[in-house]
Amino acid sequence: MTEAQSNPCVIVARCPEGNPVPEDFALRPAPASEFGVAAEVLYLSIDPYLRGRLSGRHVTGAIAPGEPMESELIVRTVENSAAGPTGTLARAFGPWQARVRLPEQALVPIAEGLDPPSLALGVLGMPGLTAYAGVQRILKPASGQTLVVSAAAGPVGATVGQLCKAAGARVIGIVGSAEKGDWLRKAAGFDGCIDRHAPLGEGLDAHCPDGIDMYFDNVGGAVLQAVMERLALNARVALCGLMEQYNQTEVPPGPNPGLVIRARATMRGLVVYDHEDLRESMEEELSGRIREGSLAYREAVFHGLQSAPTAFCRLMAGQTFGKTVVRMGSVPSCEAPSGGLQAS
Amino acid sequence: MTEAQSNPCVIVARCPEGNPVPEDFALRPAPASEFGVAAEVLYLSIDPYLRGRLSGRHVTGAIAPGEPMESELIVRTVENSAAGPTGTLARAFGPWQARVRLPEQALVPIAEGLDPPSLALGVLGMPGLTAYAGVQRILKPASGQTLVVSAAAGPVGATVGQLCKAAGARVIGIVGSAEKGDWLRKAAGFDGCIDRHAPLGEGLDAHCPDGIDMYFDNVGGAVLQAVMERLALNARVALCGLMEQYNQTEVPPGPNPGLVIRARATMRGLVVYDHEDLRESMEEELSGRIREGSLAYREAVFHGLQSAPTAFCRLMAGQTFGKTVVRMGSVPSCEAPSGGLQAS
Repeated sequence: MTEAQSNPCVIVARCPEGNPVPEDFALRPAPASEFGVAAEVLYLSIDPYLRGRLSGRHVTGAIAPGEPMESELIVRTVENSAAGPTGTLARAFGPWQARVRLPEQALVPIAEGLDPPSLALGVLGMPGLTAYAGVQRILKPASGQTLVVSAAAGPVGATVGQLCKAAGARVIGIVGSAEKGDWLRKAAGFDGCIDRHAPLGEGLDAHCPDGIDMYFDNVGGAVLQAVMERLALNARVALCGLMEQYNQTEVPPGPNPGLVIRARATMRGLVVYDHEDLRESMEEELSGRIREGSLAYREAVFHGLQSAPTAFCRLMAGQTFGKTVVRMGSVPSCEAPSGGLQAS
Repeated sequence: MTEAQSNPCVIVARCPEGNPVPEDFALRPAPASEFGVAAEVLYLSIDPYLRGRLSGRHVTGAIAPGEPMESELIVRTVENSAAGPTGTLARAFGPWQARVRLPEQALVPIAEGLDPPSLALGVLGMPGLTAYAGVQRILKPASGQTLVVSAAAGPVGATVGQLCKAAGARVIGIVGSAEKGDWLRKAAGFDGCIDRHAPLGEGLDAHCPDGIDMYFDNVGGAVLQAVMERLALNARVALCGLMEQYNQTEVPPGPNPGLVIRARATMRGLVVYDHEDLRESMEEELSGRIREGSLAYREAVFHGLQSAPTAFCRLMAGQTFGKTVVRMGSVPSCEAPSGGLQAS
């Protein structure tokens, strides 16, 4: 077996139509690049924004059929580099593959002792920074105000809710299952949850009788419309994700601008890459909250490179619970399968 | 003839369907109220937001069939009051009628010597404040950035453009006629104008090759969509008017939220009543600019109460040019029919 055969990568076999299926992906022999720092991959980050890349609709660019899937990774270097001595754990964007070579400057060492290291892909990584930046720079929660967050059990949504709760807000999550709602209420301190399959307007009216002061939108579509119809005066809306439309062929319209005018609302687009300047304070605050037990999180862990397409398809179908990652074969399996606080 | 017969008011005869027609209104005998300060009406303000009130879709409330039309007025008191001695010129909301009685606290004296006094309904009134607040609090123009403003020859649009131009921005107007575009370029210093009947995307691409940093929206609909597709990074969008949909029965959808995310744009709803705290600085700055000849404006003046329905219908059909007012019979006709700087 050649190196290329023994170190395959996941490629996009065809552009998904609607919800992706595992057959949209394939394993293809592919040697690691000859240049860059050699590293073994410990974790793949599985994220909704990748669906947008497959449709060519994401700010970070398209991934076309035939090209390798790529996302953020946690790697362990196997040679010395500017990132540190052999064995340094780092995050970097790279292909879905067991062994890689990555440009030295692309490797960012993660905090020592992070257990599991995959937290640097979740609550202490890009999703955590997304939540932190959205709360700090767009939502600006005030005590007594009402927040609604969609995809609330995901790593972004759950963190947004808990940060706003810590600032004194009432926090209502929109979720895809009763199990997720239970966890948000019991472990993450949410004041209420609405099942997205139930009549949304009724749920919002019941939970937000004085209107919605803050909305963190991970989904767009009908949920965004229903929330916009119920904004309180001077509401803030962070537009972050488009889960409802990632699987659609046509770009649907959005809410009428009159809803923004009526509420004198401020809507702002949130792309995490613009907020790297907040990463250090995010890591400090969120890791402190995790240590003191005031920030709950969950991971949905899949095992081995071959599970990556399934992990992604389940995520996009709303069938994962918590930050979705793939743990590669090189990670000892003594780690807990799912981190975070559990409901008491 | 009774007082009620000699002092009729304009009422809404029926809810307009689509573009309003004069037959949607009627003159009805109506005495002035018995309470409040007696005043004669000099000018009626004719504004697009009134169409929203006729459909029950405006923040200031509905005007139903059978009820008097009302808007901001310029009046001259005919008795002493807290607003000043007999003969004081003041602005106030009130019915479309020649002689009125208005609550004392509703009368706000206008600056002395304002010539014509109708400027307090236009560039130095609510439209001026709308423009000033939008520029100061939402657009925040930076030198070298590109502004697009729709309904650009109206009193809000033309003022927005000139304030942004003074701040060093490139200013592109969207207008309904070549005549309006000529005036904006020659008298108001706009860098370019696009006819809203021409292919809008092409016009925007030609005039804004680096994207649109600021958009002041008076219209919504297809114009808003075309602009949103061309926003530059970190764009600011002031949502103020909905001219394109005021005449529609159904509320149409708006742009997809992905356009906001892609541009990391900030959209904010602008309702002038929230920004009264800026009125004094607006009056100071804009009247200074008018005195020094650096702020052009226009008025479209109709004559007599009976012309008010026609004035409103022409405004809503895009057939007026400048701030639309009705000059009542009690105003001596020696005033110029249209104020403002003229093209050289």
